[in-house]
Amino acid sequence: MRQFRRYPPVDFARYLKFIVADQHVGWVRRTRMDHLAAFPKVFAIGNDRVAMQDGLADFESRSAAMAEVLAAWREAGLVTGWRNELFPVNRGFGQPPLLCMERAGTPLFGILSYGVNINGLVGQGRDLHLWIGRRAAHKPVDPNMLDLVVGGGQPMGITVWDNLVKECWEEAGIEAEIARQAKPVSLTTLTIEAGEGLRVGLQFNYDLHLPADFMPNNMDGEVVAFQLMPVQSLIENLLNTDEFSYDIALVKIDLLIRHGYLGPDDPDYLDLVAGLRRPIAFDPL
Amino acid sequence: MRQFRRYPPVDFARYLKFIVADQHVGWVRRTRMDHLAAFPKVFAIGNDRVAMQDGLADFESRSAAMAEVLAAWREAGLVTGWRNELFPVNRGFGQPPLLCMERAGTPLFGILSYGVNINGLVGQGRDLHLWIGRRAAHKPVDPNMLDLVVGGGQPMGITVWDNLVKECWEEAGIEAEIARQAKPVSLTTLTIEAGEGLRVGLQFNYDLHLPADFMPNNMDGEVVAFQLMPVQSLIENLLNTDEFSYDIALVKIDLLIRHGYLGPDDPDYLDLVAGLRRPIAFDPL
Repeated sequence: MRQFRRYPPVDFARYLKFIVADQHVGWVRRTRMDHLAAFPKVFAIGNDRVAMQDGLADFESRSAAMAEVLAAWREAGLVTGWRNELFPVNRGFGQPPLLCMERAGTPLFGILSYGVNINGLVGQGRDLHLWIGRRAAHKPVDPNMLDLVVGGGQPMGITVWDNLVKECWEEAGIEAEIARQAKPVSLTTLTIEAGEGLRVGLQFNYDLHLPADFMPNNMDGEVVAFQLMPVQSLIENLLNTDEFSYDIALVKIDLLIRHGYLGPDDPDYLDLVAGLRRPIAFDPL
Repeated sequence: MRQFRRYPPVDFARYLKFIVADQHVGWVRRTRMDHLAAFPKVFAIGNDRVAMQDGLADFESRSAAMAEVLAAWREAGLVTGWRNELFPVNRGFGQPPLLCMERAGTPLFGILSYGVNINGLVGQGRDLHLWIGRRAAHKPVDPNMLDLVVGGGQPMGITVWDNLVKECWEEAGIEAEIARQAKPVSLTTLTIEAGEGLRVGLQFNYDLHLPADFMPNNMDGEVVAFQLMPVQSLIENLLNTDEFSYDIALVKIDLLIRHGYLGPDDPDYLDLVAGLRRPIAFDPL
């Protein structure tokens, strides 16, 4: 439960709804209204909502307008951590996107972003061990924190499976043949206020049992070290520290629940289960 | 998704809230108001709610009053399927109950009831097989339908583990030593209109890997037959038939999701995950 308390509940009174094509797809901080008002051809600002102008009527025109806004904001230092990855904006996974936008801009508009995560497992039961990475100091989000063996955002134009195989190689040197043995096992969600806005995430989680002699080997410089952590150490880490990225702490609590390391005899069991997959914060209009 | 469509969404306009000690703990059909009004010392009937009278101020007096009501209704044929099992009424699992009541009465008051379920598994991956029972013809709920190897309600006065060990023996002849190897793996919830009222359930689900030569052996006459079903047959059964009890269909979809038999490449994946654990229908007052 201490993990859930790391971020206070979101105060939605601080935000306006972000609307595209009459659909509620995000949240923008009220403090950003001046920056939005500088683009009257792109945004229509109301009392409780900011909408993309109706004249921007298709994927291409909306994506181009958003790219222009974010490029200007990047220039002005309002967007940091630019990734050169385009994320889809939609109301349901796999549905045709209303627009796409640079990943670094998604928290500014409180857009739901999708991700893939892999639990790298060795052994089972009391002897279960988990491959844990430490994030590089230069990562834009959660530098130096503990992480999964493999995890990444789910950009446009690549299937979840292809993305997973690609991330397995880049982040941990896991060959495609082994990566394809990963099994989808759960969803987790999060909605937290980050410095720059609202991070809204839906994570597809996978378990991957690795050979006992496997050693992860980072290829892209995003992970500085790996360790093989016994499950009991993982539990103590989650109980006592904030060393894991928040979203990864959720993935690990989910793993402990799915694998039977805690159950109904834990007084927090129902609250823990509920905390892993809270509803995504988009009202029907 | 066809499993979720077996019961239409509940029309709560047909119900009044059932309130005990200022807490919303259930739902009563409006059509039952005459039967409730016959007990003015027990129930205070308002426009949108039925409350137990404030004079019934503790567990004992409330439980005694409810027992008297249900005994009279049983006499009149309004309560069927009497079990002689007392279920707790509360607002959170493991919290001190506000009262207890005969299990057969819980749908009449739309009370949340807790249950334990065990998936009996043999093998894994494509060779996974599941022990499936067929419910006896005389069971008050879902006679003749397909069921788990072991499942039962969670009454007062027994821990989940002790109940699970007891049910394992009674329903399938599973010895305590094996039963204790079951692992808690998930929660599922359901809220459906049954003939007699509203069934609101929260199920604690367990996986139990059984030896290849294990044969279940029913002791209490509640199961007429067992079969060892290949996972592919289970999937086809859920896609094409209503042979499983609805709550058990949820447990089986949950198993297929946790074990990676379906994932994000299934267009219904997010809806399937969401359907397994819908919020319990008790508003904060």
